[in-house]
Formats: sequence, C-alpha cells, structure tokens
Amino acid sequence: MRIYDIIQKKKYGEALTKEEIEFFVDGFTKEKIHDYQASALMMAIWFNGMTDEEITDLTLAMAHSGDMVDLSDVEGFTVDKHSTGGVGDKTTLIVAPIVAACGGKVAKMSGRGLGHTGGTIDKLESISGFDTALSKEDFIKAVNDCGLCVVGQTGNLAPADKKLYALRDVTATVDSIPLIASSIMSKKLAAGSQGIVLDVKTGSGAFMKTVEASTELAQKMVSIGNSAGRKTVALITDMDVPLGTAIGNSLEVKEAINVLCGKQKDDLFEVCIALASNMLCLVHSKGYEECEKMALEAVENGSALQKLKAMVTAQGGNAEWIDCPEQFPKAEFSYDIVSENDGYISFMDAQKIGTSSVILGAGRESKEDSIDFSAGIILHKKTGDRVQTGDVIATLYSNKKDSFSSAEKLFKNALEFSTDYTKEHKAVIKVIK
Amino acid sequence: MRIYDIIQKKKYGEALTKEEIEFFVDGFTKEKIHDYQASALMMAIWFNGMTDEEITDLTLAMAHSGDMVDLSDVEGFTVDKHSTGGVGDKTTLIVAPIVAACGGKVAKMSGRGLGHTGGTIDKLESISGFDTALSKEDFIKAVNDCGLCVVGQTGNLAPADKKLYALRDVTATVDSIPLIASSIMSKKLAAGSQGIVLDVKTGSGAFMKTVEASTELAQKMVSIGNSAGRKTVALITDMDVPLGTAIGNSLEVKEAINVLCGKQKDDLFEVCIALASNMLCLVHSKGYEECEKMALEAVENGSALQKLKAMVTAQGGNAEWIDCPEQFPKAEFSYDIVSENDGYISFMDAQKIGTSSVILGAGRESKEDSIDFSAGIILHKKTGDRVQTGDVIATLYSNKKDSFSSAEKLFKNALEFSTDYTKEHKAVIKVIK
Repeated sequence: MRIYDIIQKKKYGEALTKEEIEFFVDGFTKEKIHDYQASALMMAIWFNGMTDEEITDLTLAMAHSGDMVDLSDVEGFTVDKHSTGGVGDKTTLIVAPIVAACGGKVAKMSGRGLGHTGGTIDKLESISGFDTALSKEDFIKAVNDCGLCVVGQTGNLAPADKKLYALRDVTATVDSIPLIASSIMSKKLAAGSQGIVLDVKTGSGAFMKTVEASTELAQKMVSIGNSAGRKTVALITDMDVPLGTAIGNSLEVKEAINVLCGKQKDDLFEVCIALASNMLCLVHSKGYEECEKMALEAVENGSALQKLKAMVTAQGGNAEWIDCPEQFPKAEFSYDIVSENDGYISFMDAQKIGTSSVILGAGRESKEDSIDFSAGIILHKKTGDRVQTGDVIATLYSNKKDSFSSAEKLFKNALEFSTDYTKEHKAVIKVIK
Repeated sequence: MRIYDIIQKKKYGEALTKEEIEFFVDGFTKEKIHDYQASALMMAIWFNGMTDEEITDLTLAMAHSGDMVDLSDVEGFTVDKHSTGGVGDKTTLIVAPIVAACGGKVAKMSGRGLGHTGGTIDKLESISGFDTALSKEDFIKAVNDCGLCVVGQTGNLAPADKKLYALRDVTATVDSIPLIASSIMSKKLAAGSQGIVLDVKTGSGAFMKTVEASTELAQKMVSIGNSAGRKTVALITDMDVPLGTAIGNSLEVKEAINVLCGKQKDDLFEVCIALASNMLCLVHSKGYEECEKMALEAVENGSALQKLKAMVTAQGGNAEWIDCPEQFPKAEFSYDIVSENDGYISFMDAQKIGTSSVILGAGRESKEDSIDFSAGIILHKKTGDRVQTGDVIATLYSNKKDSFSSAEKLFKNALEFSTDYTKEHKAVIKVIK
C-alpha cells in the first residue's frame, strides 16, 4: 500500500477502505508518512468529503493511536458531555453535578481555554486548592464515591488526532466537517464513557456559524458514536450571544453555583437542564420528560449543589467557597459599560465579547499565557433587551486597569442596536439522536 | 502576507494576486514556506484551477527563481522547441538542422530519458565523442557558427519548479493542467529563446491521453508564452503509436539521418516538417506555405543534413558516423517478433512499447540507471497495417539476451488486432496559436 495511491484515490472522489485509513493513521503517527503527503490528503478530503463509514474508520483509527481510558472499574453507567466551545459556557459545572445527583457517573476529562473561548479546567482551578491532575486510581475512586470527577487530559489520548490537528491548523484544512467530527469523537471514544452527549454550539461565538453546518456536524458525530457502540446524542444550542451572564473563570463558577441554587432561570439554565436530561436518558434508558423532571428536582432539592461540593472536596478544593462565593478573590478594578443608544440590542457578537474578556486577563491568546481568575465580564443586558442611554450594559473586571479602554472598544464593537426587536432566540435549537 | 491565507483563498476558489504568487514562490524556494503548506496549496489548485493570469504569474515567478539564460549574443532570431515527451520522438535531431538550414537559430537545452520516454541528450551521446556539456561561451559560439547547438540543462534554471515538481510527484498533484503548463513554460522562458514551438503529444504514449486535455494544455502554454513576450505556437501531434519506426538511442539517430536524407516520408517526417515550418514562421514572420516550402527544400537539397554534421563536429562528435551510419555500434543480439494473428493492427500502445525498449536497455527506470545506446526496437508494422501470421512485426535489439522474453511479452501485450481497419491516424492533429 502506498500513501500516493491513497491521496490519488481521495482526490478522484473515491471512498477509502478501512485498511487504507488505518495505513494512513498508523504511518502518519509513526512519521513514516510525510506531513506534506498528509496535508495533501487533508485538502483532498476538504474538497471531496468522506462517507459515514470512512469518518468512523478514521475516528476509530485515531482513537486507537494512543491510550484508551478504561472506565470498567466505575460502578454504573458512565456518561460524558462535550461542548464544541463557546463564550460563557460553564455548563459542565452545572450539568455534571445534576447528572451525578440523579445516578449517572461523570468521569470527565476537560480542556483549558484558548482564544475567545474558556475551558472548564481553568474555571475549576479558580477554586482554592482544586486539583485537576489526579492519578488514574484517585480519578476512578472520586467517580465511584461522588458520581463525578473532572480532570485535565492525561495520558496519550489520540496522538494521531493531536498531530493531524496541528497540521490542519497551518494548512487551512480545519473547516472540514468530516475532519472536525472525527477529531472530536476520537478523543471522546478514547476517554472511555459509555454515553456521550454533544453540545454543538452555533452562531457568532461558535466555530460553526450556521444551524445547517452545526446540524451536519452533529449528525456525523452521533453516527460515529453509535457506530462505535456508544450511546450518543447531540444538542444544537445557541452561541449567537454569550451563554448566561458571566464570562471569566471565578465569575462563571459563581454563576454556576447560582444556577445550582435555583436562583437563575435563564438561557444557561435551560441549556443545562436539556443537556443533563439527555445524559440521564442515556443513563437510565428512560423518556425525556421523566429525566427532565429528575434534573429539575435535583436543582430544587439542593442535591446537585451537594454533588458539586462533594467533587470540590474530593479534588482538594475548599468547598466553603461554594457555600459562600464571596470568598472568591475579586478583581481590583471594575468598569461599567454604559449605553450610548436607546433601543433594543439586536446582536451581541459572542466572539468579540469573548476576546474582550481575554484582553481583561480572563483567557489566553497563546498556550503559554497565564490567566487572571478574577477577570471577566458580567452582562446586565443581552440580545433582545431594551436599553436606554446611560443604562449599564455590562461591568468589566480586571487587575489591569489599562486594559479597560481596548476591552470596552471591542465590547461596544460587538453590539448592534435597533428600534424594535422581534427575533426570538431559542437556547436549545434542536436535538439530534 | 501569510501562506495560510493564500491556501485558504485558493481553497475557496478565489484567484491569487501576482504578489501572493510571488510570495509563495519566493518563500517556497527559500524554504520559508513548508512543504506541507505548498502541497496543500497544490491540491487546492488541482481542485480549483487557476486563471490565465495566475498561471502566467506563477510561470514568471518560477522562471525568475533562478538563472535566466541570456541569448542576446546570438545573431538572429532564436527559436526553441519543446515536446511533452513520447516514444520514438527524435524530432529535435531532424527539426533543429532544418530550421538552422533555413536561417533560424536553435540554442537548445534538452533532457535525458526517464521511464517509457527517451531524451534527446541520450540520443546525441550515442554519437562517438558528442559533448552535451559545453560552456556558455562555446554554446553561443556554436549557435552563431552553425545555427544550432543542443546541450544538457546547465545552470540553475527555474529551481522553484524543480522543487515544486518533486513535491507534486509524491503528493498526487502532477496531473493539473495549470501546474503542468507553468512547469514546462517556466523552464522554456528561463532558457531564453525568442520563439517557442510546443509539440504537445496526445494518446496512449503521451502524458495527455485525450485531444481535449492536450488542447487545453497547449492553449494555456501558448497564452503564457505570448503574455511573457515570446512568440509561441503549439502543435497537437499523435502519440497513440510510436513516432517513426525506431525506438532506442542510436537506432533513432540513424532514423533521423534517414529522414534528413529524404529517404523516409512517414508520420515522423510529417511531424518534423510541421514543427520546423512553424518554427520558421516565427523566425521569418512569413506564412506557413512559404516556410513549409523552405523546410522541404532544406531536406531535398541536403542543407539540413549538413547542419546536423556541422553541429556534431562543433560539439566534438565524429561526423563520419552521420555519413556512414553503419559505424554506430550494433547490439550483440536481435530477436524478431512474429505475428500470431491475421488482420489489421488496430492499436499499438505506445507506452507499453516504450517500456519494452527500457527492458531491452534503451532507457532508464530510475535516474541512476545507465543506458545501452544500441538497444531498442525497429517497427516493421504499425497501427493500420495489414499483417499475416508469421509476419515480422518488429525486431528487438539488446546486449542482454535474457531481456527478450519479457520485452516480447510486453510488446505483444501492446498490440490489438481487428479484421478490418478504417480509423484514420493524423500525425499532426491541430495547430494552436
């Protein structure tokens, strides 16, 4: 078998066999196949796509290129959640405790923030003492004891995907749905859970800007997951506006606590209940309404909040901060963004607002940057809200006072106003099974 | 400017600007742009093509990436000929002397054979003493003295093309008409002649298998040449069957001598007269009929043959061999291929016959292989000819007796027979100006 013939075949629009895909993934991981051949193949795939069978073969080959996490020591049904990334997306902090409170097992590996989107690991580390680097044994023990545990990615998960993604990133071949789907799912399959609920974000703050593209990606990922023997469901959720009202690490943890206390019933709450309920459907093989009832009850009766506290304690964090969120350190400076307009906010570019929070210190522009946990943005108004001149639209928080002017400029640049507003925003757009 | 954005732009089907193309060629030549980015761009070009303007910009950038041969010391109009490669293609040996005899200046750089096609430099080196590695000064002097000189490629001609072609060759991006056209023309422009006649072969022995593809390639090359200020014409000629009757280095030189002596008036003669006449049209800015008359006369009156002898002498070769071709060393063994069929030869796969001659020792499978000048094939029958069982179709020549059986097998495999034959073969299919 020769990589040349494989490139040629894909170039002419033919489907690759399982053997050809495995030959490529293996050779590429072992550096027997050159980067310049892999990038030519990626570009041919960008143009000609892949069949569902090819995508599944590619995903499985990449998943098996490194460690496959073994969760067989976890008692009960393991269920994972994956978000394609958004601004203000703290859903894991809310959803995992709800699911654990209702009998699911969430043994989750999460990532750090990069660019305009945040990462769950950074958010958790804003809690004093919280350890995201547990050993395999402690990880499994925490899941068995508490029902949930969230750690950073450890081990050598899907190294073929890591290497291929880095190549795609510099050869303009990232935006291919078959390649995105196989990249995400290779890591999810390697991470070992029996059930997977995918949160595919759509809109200005998301990688996928349209519902059509998000739906196509979601369908491919659900198909891969099911073909690989995992129960998989995807939700398309709105990321045309930041989710909830807080952006920035400790600000988001505090918002998550607020939701788990039943004090915040907004778009964030709605998305979290939908995600948790769908995860519970996989755990219990029960209907959606019944699972939704369980999820709502776990918030109402405080059991979900208890699960968050249990996880924080199990992972070395100070659970008192969950009871008294005032203990989170506050940023030294704050700054109100005041409306110069009368009317309705008709659009709020989530990506620009995310980037504005990075300027304040809440995120990273490159992997090496450090993070200011207390920095960020609290939104007082969102898309669809009526504002008058002088109203405070948002408050910026930072320890770098001189970051406010450029953060404000970008924030204001993200806003559009109109004299009336009728467009309805649905937080959960659709569910794909 | 970033190569990423250039790949992205081409991927989305947009035309690149002159600046973008120059940025790519310069960066790639200087190894500032990675091979994996160049191969992704080549694949995007394979899919989305290039406008005539882009092709010209790419060609000029590649031509100027190295030395540009300066022929300004040649007195008279310099005219070059390029063939896209075929089996039995000894046209340069005939055409250059005719053109020189009629007042044109042929200062030509040629290549060696590789795979199933031969190369002019190998053919000339089969003449005792012939030197194809002259200094720049001797090259110009020979052209001024004799009107023609043929040397191997010297200097650093179009290094960007050389590097890019090597990359395309291993990434399945060779078969792109814009890339083939710019590759050929970058070398032709760097080689310095004022006029260029392109011989685009079409059919089983050619890189371009159909007249449509050959026409498209020819049109692109003519457009590039004219845009770059060179008078350029292309002929589409038949390579569905080997050209003439001899395949193999010294066998082909002997056949060329025969044609220049006016003793062979076949498809080879026809193609040579068409090429020479078109070159003379560029040299003298005269009509085709007048130029054809000159070309035919140069054969009839022996002046073309004298030019061949003058060139051989000027380049250190033994011109007596031209007068007495029996002096060329003969292969030790010969073998007749005898027909097992009655009927007409309806097809003769030129590529297979070329490969058969390589088996006999006449060509190279890889660049390092040595050549047996005396090895090759003489065809006694060609496509359209009537044969009876027992007729000798061809004679194989080699110094390796044990090569005959596999060469014969492949040769016979190249033949198809039918009971009647009506299809007409045109040697010169069309002219594109």
